[in-house]
Amino acid sequence: INGGQHRYGAGAGRIPARIHLSSVETGETSVSATVTPVAYEDASDEVRAVYDDIMSSRNIDFIPNVWRTLASHPPTLARVWYGLKEVMAPGALDARTKEMIAVAVSATNGCEYCTRSHTRQARGHGMTEEMYGELMAVIGMFNQTNKLIEGYQVEVDEFLKEV
Amino acid sequence: INGGQHRYGAGAGRIPARIHLSSVETGETSVSATVTPVAYEDASDEVRAVYDDIMSSRNIDFIPNVWRTLASHPPTLARVWYGLKEVMAPGALDARTKEMIAVAVSATNGCEYCTRSHTRQARGHGMTEEMYGELMAVIGMFNQTNKLIEGYQVEVDEFLKEV
Amino acid sequence: INGGQHRYGAGAGRIPARIHLSSVETGETSVSATVTPVAYEDASDEVRAVYDDIMSSRNIDFIPNVWRTLASHPPTLARVWYGLKEVMAPGALDARTKEMIAVAVSATNGCEYCTRSHTRQARGHGMTEEMYGELMAVIGMFNQTNKLIEGYQVEVDEFLKEV
Amino acid sequence: INGGQHRYGAGAGRIPARIHLSSVETGETSVSATVTPVAYEDASDEVRAVYDDIMSSRNIDFIPNVWRTLASHPPTLARVWYGLKEVMAPGALDARTKEMIAVAVSATNGCEYCTRSHTRQARGHGMTEEMYGELMAVIGMFNQTNKLIEGYQVEVDEFLKEV
Amino acid sequence: INGGQHRYGAGAGRIPARIHLSSVETGETSVSATVTPVAYEDASDEVRAVYDDIMSSRNIDFIPNVWRTLASHPPTLARVWYGLKEVMAPGALDARTKEMIAVAVSATNGCEYCTRSHTRQARGHGMTEEMYGELMAVIGMFNQTNKLIEGYQVEVDEFLKEV
Amino acid sequence: INGGQHRYGAGAGRIPARIHLSSVETGETSVSATVTPVAYEDASDEVRAVYDDIMSSRNIDFIPNVWRTLASHPPTLARVWYGLKEVMAPGALDARTKEMIAVAVSATNGCEYCTRSHTRQARGHGMTEEMYGELMAVIGMFNQTNKLIEGYQVEVDEFLKEV
Repeated sequence: INGGQHRYGAGAGRIPARIHLSSVETGETSVSATVTPVAYEDASDEVRAVYDDIMSSRNIDFIPNVWRTLASHPPTLARVWYGLKEVMAPGALDARTKEMIAVAVSATNGCEYCTRSHTRQARGHGMTEEMYGELMAVIGMFNQTNKLIEGYQVEVDEFLKEV
Repeated sequence: INGGQHRYGAGAGRIPARIHLSSVETGETSVSATVTPVAYEDASDEVRAVYDDIMSSRNIDFIPNVWRTLASHPPTLARVWYGLKEVMAPGALDARTKEMIAVAVSATNGCEYCTRSHTRQARGHGMTEEMYGELMAVIGMFNQTNKLIEGYQVEVDEFLKEV
Repeated sequence: INGGQHRYGAGAGRIPARIHLSSVETGETSVSATVTPVAYEDASDEVRAVYDDIMSSRNIDFIPNVWRTLASHPPTLARVWYGLKEVMAPGALDARTKEMIAVAVSATNGCEYCTRSHTRQARGHGMTEEMYGELMAVIGMFNQTNKLIEGYQVEVDEFLKEV
Repeated sequence: INGGQHRYGAGAGRIPARIHLSSVETGETSVSATVTPVAYEDASDEVRAVYDDIMSSRNIDFIPNVWRTLASHPPTLARVWYGLKEVMAPGALDARTKEMIAVAVSATNGCEYCTRSHTRQARGHGMTEEMYGELMAVIGMFNQTNKLIEGYQVEVDEFLKEV
Repeated sequence: INGGQHRYGAGAGRIPARIHLSSVETGETSVSATVTPVAYEDASDEVRAVYDDIMSSRNIDFIPNVWRTLASHPPTLARVWYGLKEVMAPGALDARTKEMIAVAVSATNGCEYCTRSHTRQARGHGMTEEMYGELMAVIGMFNQTNKLIEGYQVEVDEFLKEV
Repeated sequence: INGGQHRYGAGAGRIPARIHLSSVETGETSVSATVTPVAYEDASDEVRAVYDDIMSSRNIDFIPNVWRTLASHPPTLARVWYGLKEVMAPGALDARTKEMIAVAVSATNGCEYCTRSHTRQARGHGMTEEMYGELMAVIGMFNQTNKLIEGYQVEVDEFLKEV
């Protein structure tokens, strides 16, 4: 079906010794993305430059499927990756808070990949299980109130109409 | 602009002599909610108890429209208010972070009242404009990637399938 | 801006004596739809046939904005109206239950017009305020649990995988 | 990966003789939730009290995954379960109607677990296949009209602006 | 579990020699739809007429699952199929553009089946990989800006309020 | 109705002496965005550079509210504007098709500003009323089928699982 899921960089200098194997490589059957993900070794220089930046920025030695998939359209890969990197850089908000916000967006949208990915990254940035429980409780609660407010068509209070 | 949002209870123990007037009561034309919001003076004891708790918990002297509207079904008012109060109590996450997560949910759902309300509350808990800018940037970015991932049907990486 | 909101059928046999006046007719400023709604008197025979069926089926003497707007594309007007009429005819479910289901869809989607319209129609079919309160409570609750389940990526139980 | 999916209560008095086995127990590979579900035997007294109430209220002898997952944050488990139980108790609306409304919310949100679960429960409360067909037809129709109305930005009729 | 996924028309004149085998037929375990899909050979005349029209219109020799599932409620099958056929007929917009719009709707809704199906059909109508990359980039971008605009509650410009 | 949307810079090189006045500045009552939009004269050089590019790229002499609002966080303004400009440049798809796709996204999300803006821009790029009618019909139809498919949990056909 696929074949796009190769190890990258075999024999190259920057190459990781231990490679993450995807489901395709391990022979599991799977539902494909709507495009063939781009393997590191098949990637153009333009795509490889982004891949290299992803791996060094994230300190990982493989390319997660989202980036290998976006690489099917290189301008999208570059625009989204560099945009995301800018947005997620710690600033007034720390990385953990940003990842938790990303979980809130992803859970509300019901996006499986996104929810799993940001939950993992939030934990990697120190989100404890207690924080996670509270995050989820907040997400649930306000999805409830959002829809109650839409359903009742609650009038916007005057004090909420100003900045 | 306003005027409709009076303090209640001026000089009257906890009980207001003159009650918050809604836009409907003041004769302003307006699009109504789908139910008549419940004024404090018209409220049952059960509803008043919740109203009093809202005002003392939030340190405000009026009842925002969302609660006056939910009061049309008292069990919903009580369940949602006490549930929300429990969820929003500072714990492993502080109140500001929780309100920012609520903004993320509300913006993603496109709920005007909710977005305005939680943005205001997040600011009340110390969200700076720089924090707000970053919050919005994160919300925008991951709504983009969520839909790219859904559109391409990106395969869930193996490392994302485990807890 | 508009002018599309005329009385229809002046002088005709089936004509109502008292006409519902829209905001446009009464000179209120308003935000327009993205197309000019089609007035009865300006309508083609094809559109008028649908308008007549709407008025007689609903027992009203004006054309609500949704239909006047869809009439900008006559095949859509006809397809949607006759489809909706088929779907909403009482069958195994009564009209009130169907309208309450429509409220659930509309509130979940956050569609103002739709929510207002179906709430009104559900009441017209006998939905009491107590029923409405319970309807809204159910809508709120399951929007909450839906998002908790998406956020936690709850595994589908085996007993739920079968018909 | 997991292990959290044990039979509960082995050897205890209240123990069912026949146990529902989950996919994990039967050795099937599966994608995990983002937390380890809590098995009955590993549960705190607080969680067990909720589990017992779920099993007796629903007349089942196992804990569906949604509750075992929410149990990772006990206050959420308790708040959501007791809230849901209150909301779903027959009142002005019967249990079947409430479950069909829950199906409408869940299908509109595209939540698989939720849709499967509420469809099953609606059937358990007597929803016939004809009712189900009509329910789905209504859900489909109003998702269509909701988006047509949003797309055309249909003006809210005056008669819809009032309660 | 199922069994509903049979070849249709065995021995009949219009029968394809090579049959598409579904996962059920090939013995793979699978999660079922919430109803048993209707096989051609088990279908009523009413359903078969629609099935025949689907196969001849699409030039395929099997019935995709969506139609076999909708056939559980024959009026829905007929209404949706004939409506869809009318909507998708080339007119002012060509079939490829219409399928790309359908991809935009489906990706935004996060519907897997729909996204896969319309992506495939758009390709069948000549959507190149470059077109697809641009389509996805547009979908991603405006999901981002939609939510930024909702989050900031951007005021509608005057020039946008008119038709 | 309006007046708030002035050309800026009449006769003043590129730089306006008197700048676009927002509704707030002109004293009209209005519901504000959640931040104060940034007027050209108050803008930093960084923001002005983007504003100038917007006006020259779009061939307009004012800054629409969306950009004035995003300017409250300059990195977001720049990232989104330049990203959008890249994405919307004619390529394998023409500008009109891209704007129609943006309408599909915006209508599906129920975003008023977005829907109005992209509908206007699509018309500016030659979308006829017949095209628009078909666009809306497609949007409506697939929001319907998306939710039918989610509601019935239609199984993904084997032929849809591959690229």
